[in-house]
Amino acid sequence: MNPVEIIIKKRNGAELVASEIKFFVEGYLTGNVSDYQMSAFLMSIYFKGMTPLETSTLTDIMLHSGKVLDLSDIKGIKVDKHSTGGVGDKTSLIIAPIAAAAGVPVPMISGRGLGHSGGTLDKLESIPGFRTDLSIYEYIKSLKKIGAVLIGQTEEIAPADKKIYALRDVTGTIESIPLICGSIMSKKLAEGIDGLVLDVKTGIGAFMKTYEDSEKLALNLKSIADSFSKKTIAFITLMDQPLGNAVGNWLEVVESVECLRGKDVPDLMEISLNLSGAMIYLGGKASSIEEGIEISKDLINSGKAYRKFLEIVDNQNGDISYIENLEKYPKSKNVIEVKAKTSGYINSINAFEIGMVGIELGAGRMKHDDAIDPKAGFLFNKKVGDYVNKGELLVKVFTDKNEIDPSDDGLLRVEKSFMINAKKPEKIPIIRKIIN
Amino acid sequence: MNPVEIIIKKRNGAELVASEIKFFVEGYLTGNVSDYQMSAFLMSIYFKGMTPLETSTLTDIMLHSGKVLDLSDIKGIKVDKHSTGGVGDKTSLIIAPIAAAAGVPVPMISGRGLGHSGGTLDKLESIPGFRTDLSIYEYIKSLKKIGAVLIGQTEEIAPADKKIYALRDVTGTIESIPLICGSIMSKKLAEGIDGLVLDVKTGIGAFMKTYEDSEKLALNLKSIADSFSKKTIAFITLMDQPLGNAVGNWLEVVESVECLRGKDVPDLMEISLNLSGAMIYLGGKASSIEEGIEISKDLINSGKAYRKFLEIVDNQNGDISYIENLEKYPKSKNVIEVKAKTSGYINSINAFEIGMVGIELGAGRMKHDDAIDPKAGFLFNKKVGDYVNKGELLVKVFTDKNEIDPSDDGLLRVEKSFMINAKKPEKIPIIRKIIN
Repeated sequence: MNPVEIIIKKRNGAELVASEIKFFVEGYLTGNVSDYQMSAFLMSIYFKGMTPLETSTLTDIMLHSGKVLDLSDIKGIKVDKHSTGGVGDKTSLIIAPIAAAAGVPVPMISGRGLGHSGGTLDKLESIPGFRTDLSIYEYIKSLKKIGAVLIGQTEEIAPADKKIYALRDVTGTIESIPLICGSIMSKKLAEGIDGLVLDVKTGIGAFMKTYEDSEKLALNLKSIADSFSKKTIAFITLMDQPLGNAVGNWLEVVESVECLRGKDVPDLMEISLNLSGAMIYLGGKASSIEEGIEISKDLINSGKAYRKFLEIVDNQNGDISYIENLEKYPKSKNVIEVKAKTSGYINSINAFEIGMVGIELGAGRMKHDDAIDPKAGFLFNKKVGDYVNKGELLVKVFTDKNEIDPSDDGLLRVEKSFMINAKKPEKIPIIRKIIN
Repeated sequence: MNPVEIIIKKRNGAELVASEIKFFVEGYLTGNVSDYQMSAFLMSIYFKGMTPLETSTLTDIMLHSGKVLDLSDIKGIKVDKHSTGGVGDKTSLIIAPIAAAAGVPVPMISGRGLGHSGGTLDKLESIPGFRTDLSIYEYIKSLKKIGAVLIGQTEEIAPADKKIYALRDVTGTIESIPLICGSIMSKKLAEGIDGLVLDVKTGIGAFMKTYEDSEKLALNLKSIADSFSKKTIAFITLMDQPLGNAVGNWLEVVESVECLRGKDVPDLMEISLNLSGAMIYLGGKASSIEEGIEISKDLINSGKAYRKFLEIVDNQNGDISYIENLEKYPKSKNVIEVKAKTSGYINSINAFEIGMVGIELGAGRMKHDDAIDPKAGFLFNKKVGDYVNKGELLVKVFTDKNEIDPSDDGLLRVEKSFMINAKKPEKIPIIRKIIN
């Protein structure tokens, strides 16, 4: 077998057999396939796609390129959630403790933020002392003891995905459904899960901008999970405006803690309760998503979910005094209030723009090694559908930077990301579809 | 500017501006663009193509990545010929001396054979002592003195093309019309030519298998040449069966010498005379291609073309005693006669298969560093349209190898490359089109 022949076969649109995909992916790890051949192969996949069988084979090969965790001696049906990423999406912080409090073990391996979208690891690490780099031994021990653990991808988990993802990032081959599916599912399956809840985001703040693409991704992810006999529920949820009122790592921890203590942030809690409800249902602790939602609400009201969150933070070396007393945290040097220039209904808030300006504030990164300011971000006072008077506060901007890139005028971009109109916008359900 | 953004722009089908193409190609030479980014870029071009402006810009940038020769102190209109490559295509050896004898300076930079197709350099180097690695100084001096010189691509000519071509070869990105155009034209324009005759091959033995693709390539090549104000005539010629009766490096030298001495090999001489006629016309030594053809015939009949060939060989250190006495050359250990299994008309001879079996005989190479046996090859006794009796000789196979890869039975493949049928095939003109 020869790498060029395999590239040409895919380039010409033929279906690859398992031995060819295996040769290519394993050859990339051993050096028999060079990085320039892999990138030509990835670009061919971008253009020609992969059949469900090819995608499932790719996933299987990446999954078995590293350790596949065995959680069989932990009682219960282990369930994780994966989101395709968005702006203000902090649901993992809310639902992991809820599901764990309901008795469903939650082994969660998360990612960092990149580009406009945030990452669970960065949010958790804004808590002083919080460790996301647990060893596999500590990971399993934590899951047994606490019922939930949230860590980053280790070197041992799906190394083929790690190497290929890094290459995709610099070769314009991120936006390919089979490659996205293979990447997500190889990591998730390596965690040792029994069930998975998927939150596939759609809209301007998501990687998949159109509903059609998002649905295609959701169906593809579910079909791979099915081929590995994993119970999966996929949600397609709206990511047009930021989710909740907070965007930025520590600000999102604060909002999550407030929600776990009982605060209702409508869009955030609608999605969170559905996701935790689905996790509890898949975990065998409820007979339906609806019953799972009721259980979730009870766990919040009783304080059990919040206490589980404290346990998780404490177990992973986080300083819970900052959670118990949120005001203790350092403050941003500058807090800028962005106000409405006109009265009317907010028709949209461009989540992508907010995410991109967030990078300038210090809340995100463009490159993998960029530093993050955990305090930086946004607190929204108004969301889509709200009426606002001229001069009224739209959003508070938090940053230590004295100048937010004056060349492209970050604050103006924030203001312009609000579309204010005399007409009240039609309310679109935030949960667009549930694929069960 | 950022390589990933440029890859994504091309991947999404947008037209690149000159500064973006320049950034990418020059960055590849300096190391700011990595080889894996270049291969993703090339694959995007494979799928999305390039506009005429983009192709011309790419050509210009590759052309100016190295030395552009100045032949202005050599009198006359300098004309070269380029063929897209085929099996048995030895026209360069015949037409360079004809055009030079007609007073048209012929500066010719040629390539090596790769895969099923032969290369002029390998043919010339089968002549003992022949040097194709002249310095640019020797190249210009030879052109002045002899009126024709045939060398290989030097490090100084279009280094960007050289580096990109090597990458295309191992990443499945050879078959892209804009990339082929840029590669051919950047080298040809760097030679310092005033005019160019193009022989775009079409058919099973060509890189472009369909007439439509070949015509598209011819039109694209001509359009680039036009944009650089070079006089160009493009021929589209049939490459279904091998051209002439000889395939293999030294065997093709022999056939070329015989033709220069006056032998008529119909298909080979029809193309050769048209190409030399066009060169003489573009070189201003005839008022039409037809007149150029008549001049070419006279130069053969008078022996002037043959003597020019001897001058060229001698000037480039070749031992002309082997040309003057062709029998002096070493012989292949094995000469195998392949005979007809059935009587009938030869309807086709698969040139691609002949080229591929030629590699097994030792006449060609699959990898750049494979060694070549200059004696190996084929001498055809029958061509398409000929009637053959059962048991009659079809082709003689020359090789030093005692076994021609028995696993895929090279000799059987040779026999099977002849389609013999009771019906006489319709005669298709070998020159399909002239684009002037």
